[in-house]
Amino acid sequence: MALVVQKYGGSSVADATSIKRVAQRIVTTKKAGNDVVVVVSAMGDTTDELLDLAQQVSPLPPGRELDMLLTSGERISMALLAMAIANLGHEARSFTGSQAGVITDSSHGRARIIDVTPGRIQGAVDNGQIAIVAGFQGVSQDTKDITTLGRGGSDTTAVALAAALNADVCEIYTDVDGIFTADPRIVPTARKIPRISYEETLEMAACGAKILHLRCVEYARRFNLPIHVRSSFSHKEGTWVVSGAATRDENSEGIEMEQPIISGVAHDRSEAKITVVGVPDKVGEAAAIFKTLAEAGVNIDMIVQNVSAAATGRTDISFTLPVTDGSAALTSLKKIQDRVGFESLLFDDQIGKVSLIGAGMRSHPGVTAKFFAALADAGVNIEMISTSEIRISVIVGQDEVDTAVTAAHRAFDLDADQVEAVVYGGTGR
Amino acid sequence: MALVVQKYGGSSVADATSIKRVAQRIVTTKKAGNDVVVVVSAMGDTTDELLDLAQQVSPLPPGRELDMLLTSGERISMALLAMAIANLGHEARSFTGSQAGVITDSSHGRARIIDVTPGRIQGAVDNGQIAIVAGFQGVSQDTKDITTLGRGGSDTTAVALAAALNADVCEIYTDVDGIFTADPRIVPTARKIPRISYEETLEMAACGAKILHLRCVEYARRFNLPIHVRSSFSHKEGTWVVSGAATRDENSEGIEMEQPIISGVAHDRSEAKITVVGVPDKVGEAAAIFKTLAEAGVNIDMIVQNVSAAATGRTDISFTLPVTDGSAALTSLKKIQDRVGFESLLFDDQIGKVSLIGAGMRSHPGVTAKFFAALADAGVNIEMISTSEIRISVIVGQDEVDTAVTAAHRAFDLDADQVEAVVYGGTGR
Repeated sequence: MALVVQKYGGSSVADATSIKRVAQRIVTTKKAGNDVVVVVSAMGDTTDELLDLAQQVSPLPPGRELDMLLTSGERISMALLAMAIANLGHEARSFTGSQAGVITDSSHGRARIIDVTPGRIQGAVDNGQIAIVAGFQGVSQDTKDITTLGRGGSDTTAVALAAALNADVCEIYTDVDGIFTADPRIVPTARKIPRISYEETLEMAACGAKILHLRCVEYARRFNLPIHVRSSFSHKEGTWVVSGAATRDENSEGIEMEQPIISGVAHDRSEAKITVVGVPDKVGEAAAIFKTLAEAGVNIDMIVQNVSAAATGRTDISFTLPVTDGSAALTSLKKIQDRVGFESLLFDDQIGKVSLIGAGMRSHPGVTAKFFAALADAGVNIEMISTSEIRISVIVGQDEVDTAVTAAHRAFDLDADQVEAVVYGGTGR
Repeated sequence: MALVVQKYGGSSVADATSIKRVAQRIVTTKKAGNDVVVVVSAMGDTTDELLDLAQQVSPLPPGRELDMLLTSGERISMALLAMAIANLGHEARSFTGSQAGVITDSSHGRARIIDVTPGRIQGAVDNGQIAIVAGFQGVSQDTKDITTLGRGGSDTTAVALAAALNADVCEIYTDVDGIFTADPRIVPTARKIPRISYEETLEMAACGAKILHLRCVEYARRFNLPIHVRSSFSHKEGTWVVSGAATRDENSEGIEMEQPIISGVAHDRSEAKITVVGVPDKVGEAAAIFKTLAEAGVNIDMIVQNVSAAATGRTDISFTLPVTDGSAALTSLKKIQDRVGFESLLFDDQIGKVSLIGAGMRSHPGVTAKFFAALADAGVNIEMISTSEIRISVIVGQDEVDTAVTAAHRAFDLDADQVEAVVYGGTGR
């Protein structure tokens, strides 16, 4: 008998009908002989509606109270889901994050999980019950206050609980059939990836692929817990996220070089680019700039420093950052302009990042050349470049993102013979 | 410095504007030098909306899950209220029933409070914070599951918490200015009662007055905790519900006979009357009838047994019960018809109960006669009568309730010189 942890997002439990459909799927898994623990997000737009209510009451609500408010969302969805399962003749028990033993630090709105003590969940499972757990929430170790985990919180709850329960798999249900070689809305011939390593999934998440959040993949990698990303609207196999070794095991009978070089093409339109123009080329100037940005809480992604022009003794430093951090970054840099002595600041939010990801590229030196050639042939101008062992990212004009993704996808033979993907709806939290 | 517990019902926190108004009132109480603990119900129609959702998912939801669902309602209102208070520059902390130490038995949907361990609430108060507590909910001692207290639950939470905290007063905010000598919608000249004893308030609640629930008055009486019933829409003094001794103390300078004989006239349209016709007048027959009804979970109010007609050796037994219990009662009685040997069953849901309440009537023998004379003069026919030491109730035709209430109110000189009452809206839970 396997222990399966399933996570359903907000779009999967948006209304009574969806909840009954999800209940049916859970009961099917149970009937197949598995123990089942379910993690659920708030219904559809509930979180936005609650945030709107908070906004009506207070422009800057205290984090503790905002968490208390938002966690009512999962309370509603999990209770309804337990009712729907009971209706099908199976016993289900809903548990808040606190009851499920999700212990966090006290950072309201973005709490980190410190420990998971799932005694009550294990007890319910041992009694043959289906446990329904509120995603996204926990209880702080120090203050015993209710906390929320922030973006990707429900996925993280599911993986953390699966790890603590020693589950065989964590199934993350979403509105697409799995992780694709590119966003099917841009590349209709994108293929579903059957197996992918944690590392590649992390790079894809970091590069804008929205299926899985960084945190939950990091958590799963640490505990070597297999994640199965699949659609709550179909019964197809989805994408298995497993350790690099396991992805190779799959091909152990064949030859490793048949492993595809490139897993997929990710893109991200949420970044902006700032260029600090005419920075005096002296030791410590770049450090001063990035120290200031760090103090302002700005997340930096890519950094490029041009070779200094010998004649002027000055250089330009460009970096990308979330567009939402743009104004904080510019404000903090203005303050040190005189001290550092740079000439001016440029801000461009009309950029996009296109990333090629694949563990196979480590041993294939021609990948970069092929990628750049494909972009050049498609007439796409590259503004910045950044690489890791299993990723190449380029910054291009925002209106050239689709062209670049499509060109790269084709160049690396990722296109399927026919359209595979169906995109069903929005994504939950 | 006094410790004040305030309870606000659903209509007082129906939307963002109301919540801000309530926050203002709480802060005013705090600024006046009091420690403040607030108990709050779910916003306006939230509970009904959640029940509707549950109904869409399951026709008969498990009690445990229904309680989990419904308790999200107070979670929303209390967090919003805490935010609104923070906005006014005061520190507020919201607490669930479980966090507030409201320990109950495991009867989902109608849990009884076993104990209150308000350590966290006391801690918040000691830190100068305003504690906001979810009404209507608790946590079961045995299973640690979330429970709800059923009808009047938030009032009971407030009184129980006030007793456990040794508060000076429990203020119950509602949408009228206090407890009136009669329902102001029927008797526009009804007067607000400044002070009333627990006993009289209990009789009024039992007789259909909807301001305070039986449970919370019983609780307050046990702990001799003063309740101040007042409007959340005005700053007028409301009605103080206190021990009988205290109501007399008020008049200690004067003479006790100046204490009004009658406190008020209550009415109730929610009952029905069943008559069991032709019951053999033998020992044990009535017992068999009421044992059957008790087993069917039917709540009996008034009972009248006619004198047996010597010729037939048979008698009629009439009783009143909540109209909602009517069908269960008739079904269970049908089953024992042959065994008991009664002739037939009559059911009348077109009745109303009118009750005269007043501690003063104990020592005034003429009250009953005056009451009946007033009803006779108004042309009201009395179908059943029941009395206690401080109450006389009669059953009349439902369309004669208004006439009877008005006549009794006038006969006992309860009319005010001018209209006092303003009815502001619905009532919360």
